[in-house]
Amino acid sequence: MKNLIVGQSGGPTAVINCSLYGVISEALAHKEEIDTVYGMINGIEGFLKDTILNITKDMSEETMEGLKITPGAYLGSCRYKLPEDLNDSVYPELFKKFEEYNIGYFFYIGGNDSMDTVSKLSRYASSIGSDIKVMGIPKTIDNDLVLTDHTPGFGSAAKYVASTVCEIGIDASVYDAKSVTIVEIMGRHAGWLTAASMLARKYEGDNPVLIYLPEVPFSTDKFIAQIEEALKERNNLIVCVSEGIQDKDGTFICEYASDAGVDSFGHKMLTGCGKYLENLVKEKLGIKVRSVELNVSQRCSTSCQSLTDAKEGEMAGRFGVTKALEGETGFMTAFVRSESETGAYQLSCTLEDVNEICNKEKTVPVNWITKDGSDLSDDFLAYALPLIQGSPKIPYKNGIPAYVYRK
Amino acid sequence: MKNLIVGQSGGPTAVINCSLYGVISEALAHKEEIDTVYGMINGIEGFLKDTILNITKDMSEETMEGLKITPGAYLGSCRYKLPEDLNDSVYPELFKKFEEYNIGYFFYIGGNDSMDTVSKLSRYASSIGSDIKVMGIPKTIDNDLVLTDHTPGFGSAAKYVASTVCEIGIDASVYDAKSVTIVEIMGRHAGWLTAASMLARKYEGDNPVLIYLPEVPFSTDKFIAQIEEALKERNNLIVCVSEGIQDKDGTFICEYASDAGVDSFGHKMLTGCGKYLENLVKEKLGIKVRSVELNVSQRCSTSCQSLTDAKEGEMAGRFGVTKALEGETGFMTAFVRSESETGAYQLSCTLEDVNEICNKEKTVPVNWITKDGSDLSDDFLAYALPLIQGSPKIPYKNGIPAYVYRK
Repeated sequence: MKNLIVGQSGGPTAVINCSLYGVISEALAHKEEIDTVYGMINGIEGFLKDTILNITKDMSEETMEGLKITPGAYLGSCRYKLPEDLNDSVYPELFKKFEEYNIGYFFYIGGNDSMDTVSKLSRYASSIGSDIKVMGIPKTIDNDLVLTDHTPGFGSAAKYVASTVCEIGIDASVYDAKSVTIVEIMGRHAGWLTAASMLARKYEGDNPVLIYLPEVPFSTDKFIAQIEEALKERNNLIVCVSEGIQDKDGTFICEYASDAGVDSFGHKMLTGCGKYLENLVKEKLGIKVRSVELNVSQRCSTSCQSLTDAKEGEMAGRFGVTKALEGETGFMTAFVRSESETGAYQLSCTLEDVNEICNKEKTVPVNWITKDGSDLSDDFLAYALPLIQGSPKIPYKNGIPAYVYRK
Repeated sequence: MKNLIVGQSGGPTAVINCSLYGVISEALAHKEEIDTVYGMINGIEGFLKDTILNITKDMSEETMEGLKITPGAYLGSCRYKLPEDLNDSVYPELFKKFEEYNIGYFFYIGGNDSMDTVSKLSRYASSIGSDIKVMGIPKTIDNDLVLTDHTPGFGSAAKYVASTVCEIGIDASVYDAKSVTIVEIMGRHAGWLTAASMLARKYEGDNPVLIYLPEVPFSTDKFIAQIEEALKERNNLIVCVSEGIQDKDGTFICEYASDAGVDSFGHKMLTGCGKYLENLVKEKLGIKVRSVELNVSQRCSTSCQSLTDAKEGEMAGRFGVTKALEGETGFMTAFVRSESETGAYQLSCTLEDVNEICNKEKTVPVNWITKDGSDLSDDFLAYALPLIQGSPKIPYKNGIPAYVYRK
């Protein structure tokens, strides 16, 4: 009987541990087919240093359950990229270790780069005739993986963005005076998460009134004109911008700041586009303006976890294990959306060739962005709304969620 | 029969609407003593412009209930300071309006400055022999009001800080590499909220390892030395700083940045101390460092609302109404902490003279701060832990909390 090893890689999300839970609990349920379940500490990089956790032996029931509401990567992560050249000595080294630990199933939970690892390992396995099953489980708040309806991690991040932008709007509206609040949201190349700020609207015409994604060129002149126009009809304006917005020449707006600004040590000022645009609005319109960078909470908030997202993350892990046991290898669990007879959102899993997924990027369809480039159509709403539904029952300890951890 | 009017003032919190709910529902329950309940839109400033909501007539049950989970100030707020000179014409103007609306009870929910309004109005009322009852209900995330154990709003903000700092720590710990994360927390003069980051620790020695409050002088040299020392024992260091930390001469650390930095438009760079310290650590230690500014979510997060805080906010409002009906005026509802026979946290309300409260500031006792100035003693833990307990049952609409609003 073979063993299974699972690792996490890349930036964490609010539900990457749900997928870990899915892989582990499905694997543990197949006692006739899988002997021991191992976890790589800090992904493939840690595995190369033999930092391994015996999950079967050392993970308590309580920790297992706690994984579902603990953000971050419980096993630790890495940003290690395997060499392109499959003749590199790291490959035999890795496969020797797989043999040592009697690994029959290798699972990697991650985004684009992690699928690259899955691709290389499965191709190398095939080239040496190894029967190890190498499988990828998707995760990324960026929602930028191709061949899947969406990715685990996006729903919770979107829910965080929607709730938080709505609350920022409520907070900004208490005074009877003109003001602009610019909210900078994660997403360097794909605007999915910034688009999710649309879900913050409580009624038609509500904030955020202006939303800018990296998928269409950003013009500072147009931006200022659109703000002036919007302020004619309202006092408090919330504007959401993706950190990756760029002008028609492909220059990131955040680079505008570093071109001129310097910090206290005389170094180029590294600042987000939100701060730059705040200064621009102050300069051009002389109005009360502030910027808010949503920052890491977007990918690690338990309080805003989407139950749909958490369950789908777990499902992706379970499905992968089932399929590996059927003999599949070199695949990623992908999501297929369908509708029930009553029109309700339904999701099922399928497998997609990991080689077709790694190193590609799925952006927001440009025809979902309104013509003036500052809003989304209802197509996006219909797409995203089901993904943020439901809230987990959170166990608390000392007033904060009972997160689990390795010490 | 007289009417009651209630307003909100100053910066909003996650539970200022709970106090509003408390005042309204207690007032509506006294149909034999109070005729109509009014709300000032945008505080006393709005009242002067006759922007008034007839709550008895126009607020639905559903909206009433929704107040309990809606952050921000439902009635809108203002930052209007009444003139020091009680002979100013604004006072007769206000009291004429009180007469017009047949106001017998005036309630103001707010912090320091709002209590100043309550003080002035009650003193003016007394000077002209008016029998209007003027009462203050406390609120501030800063927890800096004197003569009360704590203030409504602080518990929820503290819970947000504790959960979020814990999550930032989890997020930062996924990679096997040295890193420093500086978290900047609200509080210009009082460090209560920054101190609450101590509640993020899951076990002894857990992050945040270093916590700096404005109550003791901050030294950048000592800061760098303490970081170097802490990094000897751990990979990932979380440091929490109050926005208001200042050096021994009383200069705010955030001013250090504006002394040298300029933004893209050649203006003095207005940045927080977190960003400055991030640049300082990069400069001095050449280590991976980032800063996170927690920003407005600290005062408006529904998902991190403390149920204890919400209930106490409501209780403060109800108590004030009861006492005004008994004839009291010129007071603020204050909290008195006690212990049950089993040692459990208990809270009751009392009245304190608003003149003794306004324009004063309660800071963290210096003997609760450890000698090296970078941590808190267990006294703070015992004080703050009861205040963040419990989570409300949040109704959701379209995936986000069902906030209520005036359109």
